[in-house]
Order: sequence, then structure tokens, then C-alpha cells
Amino acid sequence: MNSKLIPFERTANYYETDRMGIVHHSNFIRRFEEARVDYLNQAGFPYSKMEELGVMLPVQSLDCSYKNAVRFDETVLIEVKITEFNGFKMTIQYVVTGKENGDTRAIGTTRHLFVTKDMKPVRVKGSYPGIYELFRNNVTPASKL
Amino acid sequence: MNSKLIPFERTANYYETDRMGIVHHSNFIRRFEEARVDYLNQAGFPYSKMEELGVMLPVQSLDCSYKNAVRFDETVLIEVKITEFNGFKMTIQYVVTGKENGDTRAIGTTRHLFVTKDMKPVRVKGSYPGIYELFRNNVTPASKL
Amino acid sequence: MNSKLIPFERTANYYETDRMGIVHHSNFIRRFEEARVDYLNQAGFPYSKMEELGVMLPVQSLDCSYKNAVRFDETVLIEVKITEFNGFKMTIQYVVTGKENGDTRAIGTTRHLFVTKDMKPVRVKGSYPGIYELFRNNVTPASKL
Amino acid sequence: MNSKLIPFERTANYYETDRMGIVHHSNFIRRFEEARVDYLNQAGFPYSKMEELGVMLPVQSLDCSYKNAVRFDETVLIEVKITEFNGFKMTIQYVVTGKENGDTRAIGTTRHLFVTKDMKPVRVKGSYPGIYELFRNNVTPASKL
Repeated sequence: MNSKLIPFERTANYYETDRMGIVHHSNFIRRFEEARVDYLNQAGFPYSKMEELGVMLPVQSLDCSYKNAVRFDETVLIEVKITEFNGFKMTIQYVVTGKENGDTRAIGTTRHLFVTKDMKPVRVKGSYPGIYELFRNNVTPASKL
Repeated sequence: MNSKLIPFERTANYYETDRMGIVHHSNFIRRFEEARVDYLNQAGFPYSKMEELGVMLPVQSLDCSYKNAVRFDETVLIEVKITEFNGFKMTIQYVVTGKENGDTRAIGTTRHLFVTKDMKPVRVKGSYPGIYELFRNNVTPASKL
Repeated sequence: MNSKLIPFERTANYYETDRMGIVHHSNFIRRFEEARVDYLNQAGFPYSKMEELGVMLPVQSLDCSYKNAVRFDETVLIEVKITEFNGFKMTIQYVVTGKENGDTRAIGTTRHLFVTKDMKPVRVKGSYPGIYELFRNNVTPASKL
Repeated sequence: MNSKLIPFERTANYYETDRMGIVHHSNFIRRFEEARVDYLNQAGFPYSKMEELGVMLPVQSLDCSYKNAVRFDETVLIEVKITEFNGFKMTIQYVVTGKENGDTRAIGTTRHLFVTKDMKPVRVKGSYPGIYELFRNNVTPASKL
């Protein structure tokens, strides 16, 4: 299924720029979330549906390296990869490139824990086989950059 | 009580500026919320306590006029006034001035409805006399600018 | 040309919700900006091109009425109309409706001044005929709601 | 000088929460910036002054580990430490703790490059001795958590 996934496309809003004239670094973290949600939509298991089932994916930790700035009205592509999944934890990698010339803008990672609505960790294998299959079947090696 | 209320003081963050080099206009709406929450804290009835009691104050409508820009690291004062209150609706005015020279930066208004947690309108007079007294005793005329 | 313009389509991000579970009211102001930028793109005169020519459109004032909440992952349509334009000022109206059932979510207005890079007001008729023609030809009556 | 620095104090705004009812993880990155700016103010070399001199400190990379959530109206303390500085690069650590009970909420790091206004790397030792002395004298070991 992974081969069919289209990178998330995102154009920079004016309100996302700062007085350096570039997209503020904190906004990349928000775009990662957008790209993650888009990935789940494309994979056929929307995050809103996951929450309805009572499973949430809070961010445990994250990192981001900034390579080249993004300016107002510029479009980037964000490639999303599930790089680790063991049934109760998951690691996702994001590679942000300029749509026009393909240069790398940023690379980041988020690490998630599967929890119930009351924030208790949950193993999805038994309780949510659909979620388990989805992620297990989509683990791919991280990009080295 | 109103005479003792101190205007809310707020210094502009870097991430709040945009590529024009000034605080983005949308952030004034967020500062109004901060000033409103500060007002309720000063008045002795924190918004978090109000929510615990089951009352919320969603924004029904708002307006804002921008007079002079605010730059990074600049401090403004926000004067908050309850200008209308009838037990189930309320209007709040915000006057934003530069701390250093007192010039007007923006003037805004938010209009709120008192609702329960399931978003049903509620008359606070009978159910929440403490909230009713608080607001009734603090209505003051709006500033004309 | 106006008849060909497509309403701006926008899906709510998780980070745009607040603890009431709905998109925070301040984010509608940001969406108005996105819809405005999209309108100019569709009209063939991108805002980034306008800024390159040395013209900016800061917001002088705005208002917004909230009718129905927007939830995470919900898609709205934003119809943008130039309702007033006199060569140095402009008023834009935004009508936000649910994509699925067409109900009104919010209605807003922004008022803009045409200025140069050093924030001096400018009449676009003489200096920027392309900008002048664009807006003059697209003024339409505001929606009443 | 470092011994006199006061941790940055920050109360969570309503608009910073998301529909999980907690401060959205992206906002910690913004608070790190606020805490960094506050640190420089306390150290007697405001970031705005640094920018006036023509030096900027863009974020090269960052990471953050989330330990415990922060709720609306809750106050945290952010301890800021310069953990590495070599005259053209710098690493800053942030430890976020609850003001009331001192529990750890998040730990993060930002790595910065000193650049000129046109984004060229600059060694501050020769050109900006005041900046050089400031950071060289304040390097302290990172907290292990």
C-alpha cells in the first residue's frame, strides 16, 4: 500500500512567517501533524476514526533539523514514513522538500505512544487489530540524510 | 472592584511576528483572550473555575480595529471592560496601548454567550449567582476611540 | 471572472482545536487570510507578486460572527467577495459553510489599505493599473446573513 | 551571573490547548523561544539588541521529550541553560517543570548558528565581543533527565 501514498503537499501561509521573512521553525512541527493525519487518511484509517474508537497517539518526543528555509507561498512536499512500530509505540519520519526543485528543507521525527482516552497505554494488537495491521504493514526504513 | 483592576501587560513574542516585521493581526484576538482570562483572575473568578462549575463563555462575534503596529519585544497594555451584561450575554471591550508612550495600537470587542458544557445557553442569575454578581457589578461604559 | 472563482476549501487541523473540542475562534481570522490569498491566486494576481511590486494589504479592521462550530477533520468552504474598493481601500467578505451540509459556520469581513513597503498609503489606480483593474472588476454585493 | 537567572514562568493560554484538553506539543517549541528571549533579557543582552547589531540566531535543529501534560491556566517554570558554545554555534537546554509541584513536564534542546542579516554564518568572537563574552561565561553542563 505504501507505494501508492502521495507525499503531503503544503503551501506556506503568510501568518506562518516571522520577521526573518521565513516560516517559523515551530510551524514545521504543526505540518508534521498535518502530514501524519493526511497519511492516515490515505492509508484508509483516519485519525478521527481512531479517536472515535478510543485510541489516541500523543507525541512522546520529537526532533527536527532545519536545512533550508521556506518562504511565504512556497510549496513543500512532506514524505511520511512509519519507521518503527511494535504494537504500543511508533516512530514516524518526515522529509520536507521543496516542490519546485526538490531540495531538502527539513527532516524530523515524532515518537508516539498508543493510549486510551484516559491516557492509559494500550497494546493495539489485541484490542484494535485494524490499527495493528495498518501500521505493521507499513513500516519502512528511515531515510538517511 | 473595577478601579483596582490592572491592565494586562503583554510583550510580543518573536513567533507572533510575520514577514511584515510586526505582530500578525490574528494574534490580537488571542491576546484579547489572554486579557479576558487575566481580568477574571483579578476579579477573583478564574475562567478555569467557571468551567469547573460547568459554565463556558464561547465567543459569538468579535471585531478589532488596528491603529498602530506592535513589534517584537514591545510591551502593550490591554485594558479590559465589561460593557454589556444581561445575565445570559456579555460584551467585552479591549483597548491596546503601547506601554512606553501610551499610543493606541488596537481596539476590539468580543461578545459572549453563557453556555453549559453541552453548549446550551444558560441564564447565570439563578444557577450561578456568584458569576452573575461578578459581571453585574463590573459593567462600565465602553471607551470611544 | 468572478463567476469562475472556486470557494476556498479548508480542513481543520488538530492543532487548531482547543479544549472545547472545536476550532479556536482566532483561527477563523487566519483562514480568512488563507482564503484571501487563494482568491488572489485564482484571480491571477498572487499576493506574493503584489508584494514584489511593492504593494501590501495590511488589515485595518475586521469582524467575525460565529454561527456553528467546526470540528477536527471537518472541511469548510470559504466564499470570498470583494464588496468595496475605491482604489486605496478595500473590503472583503468571507462566508464559511460546512462542505457536507452547507450550513453557515461563520461570516466575517476584513478591511484593507493599500500601502507601500514603508507603510505609506498608495492609490493603486495610477501606479499599479493591473491591481486596480483586478479589484475594480470584481466588486460584488456582500451577502446578507 | 548565571546563578542570578530566574527560570522563565509561563501560564498556559486557552488557545494553546487542543481537543485532548492539554497544551499542544508544538507550543512547547514556542515557549522555548520565549524562555530563550527572557534569558537574554535577564543576561543583559536582549535578542532585539542582537538583531539591531546584525546578528541572528536561527534554530538549526531541536528536540523535545514530553513527560507530563500541561493544562489550561497551569503555570510552568522553564530553566534555560547554555550547554555548548564555540563562538559560531550554540546549544541551549530547556527543562520545563510544574510550578506547583516541581514535576518535569518536558525537556528540550535547540541548536543555533550565529548568522548575519543575510544569513551568512559569523564568528562572534572578533566581530561581536560583547555577545562572545556573554555566552562564553554562561556555559553550564546540561541536566540529565
